[in-house]
Amino acid sequence: MCTSEETKILVRPQTCRLFDTGHALQLTCGESLAPVDVTFETYGRLSPCRDNVILVIHALTGSAHAAFWNTPQDRVPGWWHGLIGPGKGLDTDRYFIVCANLLGSCYGTTGPTSLNPATGQPYGLAFPQVTTADMARVQKALLDYLEIPRVRAVLGGSLGGMIVWQMAVQYPDLMDIAIPIAGTPTASPWVVGFNEVARQAIFLDGDWQLLKNDPVHLRQASKRGLKLARMIAMISYRSEVSFQDRFGREQVAEVPEQPFSEEFCFQVESYLHYQGEKLVRRFDPFTYIVLTKAMDWHDISAGYGNLERALARIRARVACVGIDTDRLFTAREMRDAAEWLRKLGKPATYHEIRSPHGHDAFLIEFDQLNALIRQILEDAS
Amino acid sequence: MCTSEETKILVRPQTCRLFDTGHALQLTCGESLAPVDVTFETYGRLSPCRDNVILVIHALTGSAHAAFWNTPQDRVPGWWHGLIGPGKGLDTDRYFIVCANLLGSCYGTTGPTSLNPATGQPYGLAFPQVTTADMARVQKALLDYLEIPRVRAVLGGSLGGMIVWQMAVQYPDLMDIAIPIAGTPTASPWVVGFNEVARQAIFLDGDWQLLKNDPVHLRQASKRGLKLARMIAMISYRSEVSFQDRFGREQVAEVPEQPFSEEFCFQVESYLHYQGEKLVRRFDPFTYIVLTKAMDWHDISAGYGNLERALARIRARVACVGIDTDRLFTAREMRDAAEWLRKLGKPATYHEIRSPHGHDAFLIEFDQLNALIRQILEDAS
Repeated sequence: MCTSEETKILVRPQTCRLFDTGHALQLTCGESLAPVDVTFETYGRLSPCRDNVILVIHALTGSAHAAFWNTPQDRVPGWWHGLIGPGKGLDTDRYFIVCANLLGSCYGTTGPTSLNPATGQPYGLAFPQVTTADMARVQKALLDYLEIPRVRAVLGGSLGGMIVWQMAVQYPDLMDIAIPIAGTPTASPWVVGFNEVARQAIFLDGDWQLLKNDPVHLRQASKRGLKLARMIAMISYRSEVSFQDRFGREQVAEVPEQPFSEEFCFQVESYLHYQGEKLVRRFDPFTYIVLTKAMDWHDISAGYGNLERALARIRARVACVGIDTDRLFTAREMRDAAEWLRKLGKPATYHEIRSPHGHDAFLIEFDQLNALIRQILEDAS
Repeated sequence: MCTSEETKILVRPQTCRLFDTGHALQLTCGESLAPVDVTFETYGRLSPCRDNVILVIHALTGSAHAAFWNTPQDRVPGWWHGLIGPGKGLDTDRYFIVCANLLGSCYGTTGPTSLNPATGQPYGLAFPQVTTADMARVQKALLDYLEIPRVRAVLGGSLGGMIVWQMAVQYPDLMDIAIPIAGTPTASPWVVGFNEVARQAIFLDGDWQLLKNDPVHLRQASKRGLKLARMIAMISYRSEVSFQDRFGREQVAEVPEQPFSEEFCFQVESYLHYQGEKLVRRFDPFTYIVLTKAMDWHDISAGYGNLERALARIRARVACVGIDTDRLFTAREMRDAAEWLRKLGKPATYHEIRSPHGHDAFLIEFDQLNALIRQILEDAS
C-alpha cells in the first residue's frame, strides 16, 4: 500500500442531484424524498465504450471514499485502498471504479443530517425510513446519471453485500457479476439482535431524549449512547481468536481500585472504548438508527413473494464470499446462499476468506481479497 | 421432568453464617468481609461415611435453587432440575448434592444488596470487589461447616465452570473429579469485552448516576441499563442458528410506523426485551457489576506465577465440557484446556455437547448432560 507523501493520488468526491421536486425519489415506505444528492468518487478511466465499470458499495459507517486520498494532509487512504489501485484486485489501470455514499448516510448523500427543505433545518427525526431497495435505486440512478448502462461487477461487504444482493434482484441486467462479501440476501435475526441492542444504547442515553427533537444538535444527541452502540457492534465485527491474539489478558497502565469504577481495567476494554469514541467523532445517532433499521428490514424477497422467486430473477453470476471466523454474517449463510442459487440453476460460486479477524476481515485481508477478486473477475471475462 | 403438582418435591433453602467479626473472610483485594452468610440447598442424602457429595456451582445470575421446588406455588423448578433428581445424571438416590449461592450474589449469600453492618443499610457501592478465588474460599468454608472433607465432584457451567477450575487449583485434595462446563481457567478478552459493554449499559442509565449512592434504592438504580445489559448478554448466550430456527424473520403483531420509534419490529427483538425485563425483576445492577468484574479478573494463575504452575497443582481428574456452538466460552478453549492438562501428565478428558443453542446449552440439553455426567462419574468410580 502506498504511504509516502509524494505518491499520494488525490481524488475529489463529487456530488450530484439525482432527484428533485417534480422528480422525487419514491421510497418503499410510500413517502417521497426530494432533493436527493449523492456524493461519489471514481477511480481509473471510463473506457470509450463504457464497458469497464465496477460499482463498489460501502458498509454501515463507510463512505464514498473507498481509495486514495482526498487531501495531501490525509493520514490514511480510503477504506478499500488495499484492493483498489493500479495492479490491485480492482485494477484502476483496467477498470473504472465507482463508489457512492449510501442513501441515508452522512457523508454527502441525503440522509437524516441533510437539510429538510420543509424546515430549512436538518431532517433529524423527520427523515423517512429508507430501505436497501431504496438505496439500490439511488445507486442505479447514479449509474444512469453517469450514462453507464451496464457494469462488470457490483461488490461490497456487510451492508454493502446486502445491497449487492438487492441490486442483483432489482436490476437483473445491470451487471455481469455480483460479489456479495459477508452480506446476506436477508438480514438474519442474529444481525437484527445486535442492531437492536446497539439502538437501545442510543435510546438509553439521556441526551438522546433531550436533544432528539432538536435538529440543530444532531451530533450532540447521544454521544455516549452512540459510543456504546459502536462498542457492542465492534465485538460482533471481530472474533474471539482475534481478541485473544491481540489483547490476551493485558491490563491497562492504571487499573482503577474502586470496584464500581466506570474506568476499565483491560486492554480489550480500552480498545472498545477507543473505537466507540472514534465513531462518535465522525457519525451521528440518527444515521446509525436509519441505516441499522434498513439492515434489519433487508429482505430481497420483499415485493417478489418469496426468497426463491427473488433469487430466480438474478441473471448475473454470483460469487458469494464468506469469512470463516465471521460471527455476524456467518460463512455458513454465504455458502447456503450460493447453494440455493445453484439449486435454481444459477451459475453461483462460494469463496471463503480465512482469517482470525472475524467479520472485519473484508477490510483487512487484502492479500486474499486481491487474489480472490482478480480471479472472480477473470473467470467471468 | 416432573411437572405435576402432587409429585413436587419441596426443598427449603438454608442459610448459615460462615464468617463473622473476629473470623472475617479475608478477600483477595486485601479487605476483610464480615459477616458472610451463605444460602444453600441440598438434594439427596449424605452417606454415613460422608463420601457421596457433589458440589454444584451456579452461573452469573443463578442461585442455590438448582433443583425441585421451594413452594407448592412455584411454577418452575430449580435451574438444573433436568440433571438433578432420582435416576438423573446427578442421581439424588446415590449422591448428596450441595449448591450454594455465590459470594457477591443476591440470593441469600452476602453481596452488595446485603446489610452493611457499618451503616445498617445495604452495601451498594461500599461492597468490596470479590474474586472467583474468594468465591471458591466460601464454597470450601461451607463444606467445612457441613463437615464434608472431600467431594466426589465439583461441577458447574459458565461462571460456575470458572469457579470449578479455581477450586481444583486452590484445593487440590478436595475432589475426585472437576467438571467445568463452558467455563475456562482464565477469562478471555472476548468475555471481558461482552461484560464491559453490559456494564457500560448500566452506567449509561441516568437512574444509575442518580441512585447509585442511595443504597435504599438499589433495585431502582438502572432498571433500563440492567435490562440492556441482559439483552446484550443474551445474544452471547445463544447462537445465530438458534435465533434463525426460533425467530427467522417473524415480525411482532404491531410493527411501529415511525422509523425512530423505540418500539421493536421483529420477534427476536421482542425476545431480547422480554429476557431483559425478566432479569430486572429478579436482579440488581450492583450484583451484576460485582459478578461480571469477578469474571473478568478470573485467572487461576493469580498467586501461582503462571498458568502452567496453577494447572500443575490440580490432582483431580478434570472432565472439560465444551459446547460446539458456544459463542462466549468456545469449545476450542475447553478442548485446549484439557489438552494443556494432558501435556502436564494430568488425567484430563474433553467432552462436547452438540447443540444449536450456544452457551445456554448447559441449561437446555439435559439428555446429553445426563448421559455425559453419568458417564464421567462412572468412569471415575
